[in-house]
Amino acid sequence: MEQPKVAILLGSDSDLAVMRAAAEVLAEFGVPHEVHVLSAHRSPERALAYVRSARDRGVRVVIAGAGMAAHLAGTAAAATTLPVVGVPLASAAGLCGLDALLATVQMPPGVPVATVAIGGARNAAYLALRILALGDGELAERLEAHRRRMDEDLAAKDGRLQQLGIEGYSKSTGEAP
Amino acid sequence: MEQPKVAILLGSDSDLAVMRAAAEVLAEFGVPHEVHVLSAHRSPERALAYVRSARDRGVRVVIAGAGMAAHLAGTAAAATTLPVVGVPLASAAGLCGLDALLATVQMPPGVPVATVAIGGARNAAYLALRILALGDGELAERLEAHRRRMDEDLAAKDGRLQQLGIEGYSKSTGEAP
Amino acid sequence: MEQPKVAILLGSDSDLAVMRAAAEVLAEFGVPHEVHVLSAHRSPERALAYVRSARDRGVRVVIAGAGMAAHLAGTAAAATTLPVVGVPLASAAGLCGLDALLATVQMPPGVPVATVAIGGARNAAYLALRILALGDGELAERLEAHRRRMDEDLAAKDGRLQQLGIEGYSKSTGEAP
Amino acid sequence: MEQPKVAILLGSDSDLAVMRAAAEVLAEFGVPHEVHVLSAHRSPERALAYVRSARDRGVRVVIAGAGMAAHLAGTAAAATTLPVVGVPLASAAGLCGLDALLATVQMPPGVPVATVAIGGARNAAYLALRILALGDGELAERLEAHRRRMDEDLAAKDGRLQQLGIEGYSKSTGEAP
Amino acid sequence: MEQPKVAILLGSDSDLAVMRAAAEVLAEFGVPHEVHVLSAHRSPERALAYVRSARDRGVRVVIAGAGMAAHLAGTAAAATTLPVVGVPLASAAGLCGLDALLATVQMPPGVPVATVAIGGARNAAYLALRILALGDGELAERLEAHRRRMDEDLAAKDGRLQQLGIEGYSKSTGEAP
Amino acid sequence: MEQPKVAILLGSDSDLAVMRAAAEVLAEFGVPHEVHVLSAHRSPERALAYVRSARDRGVRVVIAGAGMAAHLAGTAAAATTLPVVGVPLASAAGLCGLDALLATVQMPPGVPVATVAIGGARNAAYLALRILALGDGELAERLEAHRRRMDEDLAAKDGRLQQLGIEGYSKSTGEAP
Amino acid sequence: MEQPKVAILLGSDSDLAVMRAAAEVLAEFGVPHEVHVLSAHRSPERALAYVRSARDRGVRVVIAGAGMAAHLAGTAAAATTLPVVGVPLASAAGLCGLDALLATVQMPPGVPVATVAIGGARNAAYLALRILALGDGELAERLEAHRRRMDEDLAAKDGRLQQLGIEGYSKSTGEAP
Amino acid sequence: MEQPKVAILLGSDSDLAVMRAAAEVLAEFGVPHEVHVLSAHRSPERALAYVRSARDRGVRVVIAGAGMAAHLAGTAAAATTLPVVGVPLASAAGLCGLDALLATVQMPPGVPVATVAIGGARNAAYLALRILALGDGELAERLEAHRRRMDEDLAAKDGRLQQLGIEGYSKSTGEAP
Repeated sequence: MEQPKVAILLGSDSDLAVMRAAAEVLAEFGVPHEVHVLSAHRSPERALAYVRSARDRGVRVVIAGAGMAAHLAGTAAAATTLPVVGVPLASAAGLCGLDALLATVQMPPGVPVATVAIGGARNAAYLALRILALGDGELAERLEAHRRRMDEDLAAKDGRLQQLGIEGYSKSTGEAP
Repeated sequence: MEQPKVAILLGSDSDLAVMRAAAEVLAEFGVPHEVHVLSAHRSPERALAYVRSARDRGVRVVIAGAGMAAHLAGTAAAATTLPVVGVPLASAAGLCGLDALLATVQMPPGVPVATVAIGGARNAAYLALRILALGDGELAERLEAHRRRMDEDLAAKDGRLQQLGIEGYSKSTGEAP
Repeated sequence: MEQPKVAILLGSDSDLAVMRAAAEVLAEFGVPHEVHVLSAHRSPERALAYVRSARDRGVRVVIAGAGMAAHLAGTAAAATTLPVVGVPLASAAGLCGLDALLATVQMPPGVPVATVAIGGARNAAYLALRILALGDGELAERLEAHRRRMDEDLAAKDGRLQQLGIEGYSKSTGEAP
Repeated sequence: MEQPKVAILLGSDSDLAVMRAAAEVLAEFGVPHEVHVLSAHRSPERALAYVRSARDRGVRVVIAGAGMAAHLAGTAAAATTLPVVGVPLASAAGLCGLDALLATVQMPPGVPVATVAIGGARNAAYLALRILALGDGELAERLEAHRRRMDEDLAAKDGRLQQLGIEGYSKSTGEAP
Repeated sequence: MEQPKVAILLGSDSDLAVMRAAAEVLAEFGVPHEVHVLSAHRSPERALAYVRSARDRGVRVVIAGAGMAAHLAGTAAAATTLPVVGVPLASAAGLCGLDALLATVQMPPGVPVATVAIGGARNAAYLALRILALGDGELAERLEAHRRRMDEDLAAKDGRLQQLGIEGYSKSTGEAP
Repeated sequence: MEQPKVAILLGSDSDLAVMRAAAEVLAEFGVPHEVHVLSAHRSPERALAYVRSARDRGVRVVIAGAGMAAHLAGTAAAATTLPVVGVPLASAAGLCGLDALLATVQMPPGVPVATVAIGGARNAAYLALRILALGDGELAERLEAHRRRMDEDLAAKDGRLQQLGIEGYSKSTGEAP
Repeated sequence: MEQPKVAILLGSDSDLAVMRAAAEVLAEFGVPHEVHVLSAHRSPERALAYVRSARDRGVRVVIAGAGMAAHLAGTAAAATTLPVVGVPLASAAGLCGLDALLATVQMPPGVPVATVAIGGARNAAYLALRILALGDGELAERLEAHRRRMDEDLAAKDGRLQQLGIEGYSKSTGEAP
Repeated sequence: MEQPKVAILLGSDSDLAVMRAAAEVLAEFGVPHEVHVLSAHRSPERALAYVRSARDRGVRVVIAGAGMAAHLAGTAAAATTLPVVGVPLASAAGLCGLDALLATVQMPPGVPVATVAIGGARNAAYLALRILALGDGELAERLEAHRRRMDEDLAAKDGRLQQLGIEGYSKSTGEAP
């Protein structure tokens, strides 16, 4: 079995519902990865030990998703010099994710967290892919192809919209009243 | 020399300007304390080691002041079961301290941080005093006396305001134009 | 019947749905407590009288949960020198609890409220336990055990996630689509 | 000496710099008033006693200015059924007054605070005047005259702007570079 | 038929769902009132004409509820010197009512709006009652009675909570799981 | 077939549910328009090419709706000197549209975006109509008629409210409980 | 003297310091304009009368700048069907202009305000120019030239930066320490 | 001369004051880089052309700093599949950088921007270093050394604080009153 290149860390197993999208994108691009539930607050020793050993186990990029006072990404960034991507998560008791966003992005000089959008699990994976692609020409090409495909998909949707009109298009996507 | 009962932790030595007020209040009440510069991000191992050993060294309450993505108090609360008081600090590059407030207060269940106002170093000390006073009758009495004194000080100010009028009072405090 | 050591105050009986979690945590740790509906705005005299008599009735920590312009914790902190823990509550007509958070945490010097997360009833209890444990070695040990258990629970979940994979784990928790 | 009809309460004597504008407007309209430094947090008993006795001493409207977790107006509104006007004050350690605004305005049903703008001491006075004018025809006329004067003042400024042009007008008010 | 003493203005008929609570409180206290749909933006002339004639028709207090860029209360306050109470309303496309709150409360000097909580229709009515009670001793007594009743209601709820316990009380209010 | 005078651009086809209201208003006023799905991020070249050719194809006003880091309107405003109207859209993962609002409105000098309310698709169309009406007297008259109709509709609603009372009116609109 | 094509309205003469930039841009492009101090709150009748007569006096675009509960642009948009551009202004007592932004942009359907950035007086003028250029080919060309000039200016700055280096460039603009 | 590995893009030359810190960190680590003034709004074609050619010219990481409706990083991320780091900048007319933060971080799926703190130019460089170090063992070692040095620097400061005390330390750093 191939060594994981990306580690996806969750502050709580309830974050899996959102964060699994990161694993799905990585799988789509054939990038080996692993997912761990590790909390900066409830399992600080294990979290630190895991992050410190990550590089030696082949991990190149760490993705950390957490909500509320979201310390997981920052804690990881303090324990390794690998690039760490932070995904702020909205939570029922939080402020639509604004709390997690600020707790993730406002890091002090020397300990950066590459923060993506609130709930942006997929973009965390795309960012990891961009980083890995710097040393992997084939992955770089697949990313370029993905970029073109996003454009083509949108062009196809626009084409169908011109053909069907607003009413017809909305019906076809099940959004018409 | 007496064992410190309160530990005041600063994420950066630049936080001393605000956080020293906590030390001053503790000194005023004769409570032994120590102040350390320890960052959750720049010195995570030392921070953890310090917090873990705190109880054995006699510390009863940990006060942690930090700005921006303020993880220090939360990191401390994860490493000890002593009560941890968090002081969110406003910083030049921050959002008036709103970032530090949310990063300090929005902790997950099981790992509480007793958060005080933005820049509220003095209240962190008063909260520590209230906690220590549960096991120290003399301190409890001194706190009650302080509470009465706050009231009396305000009453004295009000008395002077009635006597001098707005104009006179403002001049006496140097705030008149 | 044992004297209550923790008083849980609610600004409204509708806050019981969230605040009962504080009572449940205290019960789990065998700490006697009482719950009262007392409003800083609708029953100010009774609220003050209750808080003032709390210490003599054996109460060591006051927990106050309130929403919107949440004054209950601050009012309690003004009437006693016991430690007061404030739980800001989100409410239908409020701003996701941001109003209650600011009204609870931004206290003036000398009158601290130990504020926990929005809706953080359980953490209010855990904070009270940390405070009580300073004078109760057995409780301190139980808190340490709880801290280890949180870590072990998370480790067990992580183990199951490694075993079942994302898809399997999500199904096992009923979150898979 | 005439009985005061309006009571202006300050949570701290440092609020006098902003709140004195309320007294100035009342003086301009010849409405007797008094100013007191009374804190909901540092002198809760005196604050309650004062507010409860206000009606009997002739007070018709209570104006309360406070910053941060601003409880003064709400506390007053809980202790009397007189109309209470709240002035949220910005403070150095606060969030531009947003904290005080929410802590003042978000009152629960049955205990209203008539909140004016952040730092809006003058409008607190104008609101008190509008309320008093309901029972004082002469004051009502003076308020109408003031309303016309605001319009005329602005018209005069506009006239001067047309005459002098932007450059000339800015110089005349000392704002040109 | 008695002349209305309070005018309740709605920026849109969809605001009736929230604002009718103001009418219900006034009816409960026997205060004659009228409700009108009048928009500062869609019917500016009629809105101005109505507000200008309000005093002569016996109106003493104007209550205006509006959402989003909520100009209705401010427009009313500019057109009359009667006290104007503003109710900021949350709306689907708005920011939880923060937009309406700021658009209502941040009025310039000379044109105050007495702002109550977001969605605070009932408090708008209670504020109007406090104002009217200054010239109506019977109403003042009824308000005092209401204040006592709020206290007694809460005391009764607290009593029932002591008797039934959390579980029993929650079941009795239908909130237990 | 008539040349489109207004171009409605969507950052994603999921925005059609909100943005179609803009097309409906334009259709109501008989203004030819076209709708395209074009993303500043996923199809930047096509987006630029479309906007650059818009003027030559007869387009006079560009309406762009986008959510989150909403760059579409700004990108359009950079690529043409036609007036560009921006509609910030709320999205599930966004901050109630506050993110889209700030990303749309806070444009640097020289590249303005005429921003309307969050989700304000209809107002984007009305703004386009106001602009087009400057060179189209008939359209100007229809806009004036629409303005009068808004007033009359509201007056009719108010009339019905006076006739039916709150209870009756609420029932007639299906909002009564 | 030529009829003004753009009307610049200020809620207060103190807004001239920011809003004069709009007049300067219009003057630069040779577009006749006029500036008036007119408040929605302090001179509502004159404001309405002015806006209603604007079209007949040749005005094609109305620019309105106001701070705090900024109602001026919305009031103008309610009184005319000309396009109205709103400039939210930050003010000392306001929330960095967030209050004015929300009060300006969150308009209800049918009454749009084309909102530009906080303090965006220059962009209000550029937006007016884009609108006027739809019926003025020469102005359209001048706007295109301005667009190219912005690009060239930036290219020249970039060239100088490449030549001088960061240190040298910073010194040349007086920003080096 | 060595090919630049990192491109630092500024939306305006006034951003150089903050963004030069990124260049300084890169220079400290001996990483060749270039700095360009390129605006997504004022020079969109040149910005796109530059970003598209970046990879071929040897650039591995793009850093983009911009304020207000900050589109530069997002525009770059749409034009290349290289990792793009965004630095939200606070600006005089902005909301303390909250606008730039949201406009930078809230990117749609497929087009990630690695966002750092408001004004976090140094962290943008450290993040670029972490990314480059994945393919450069020597750089990785230097980053590890830097991580240790941060810890040692803090330990040294803490040592001096223990030696000098708060008063002495504050004097030594020039922060004592």
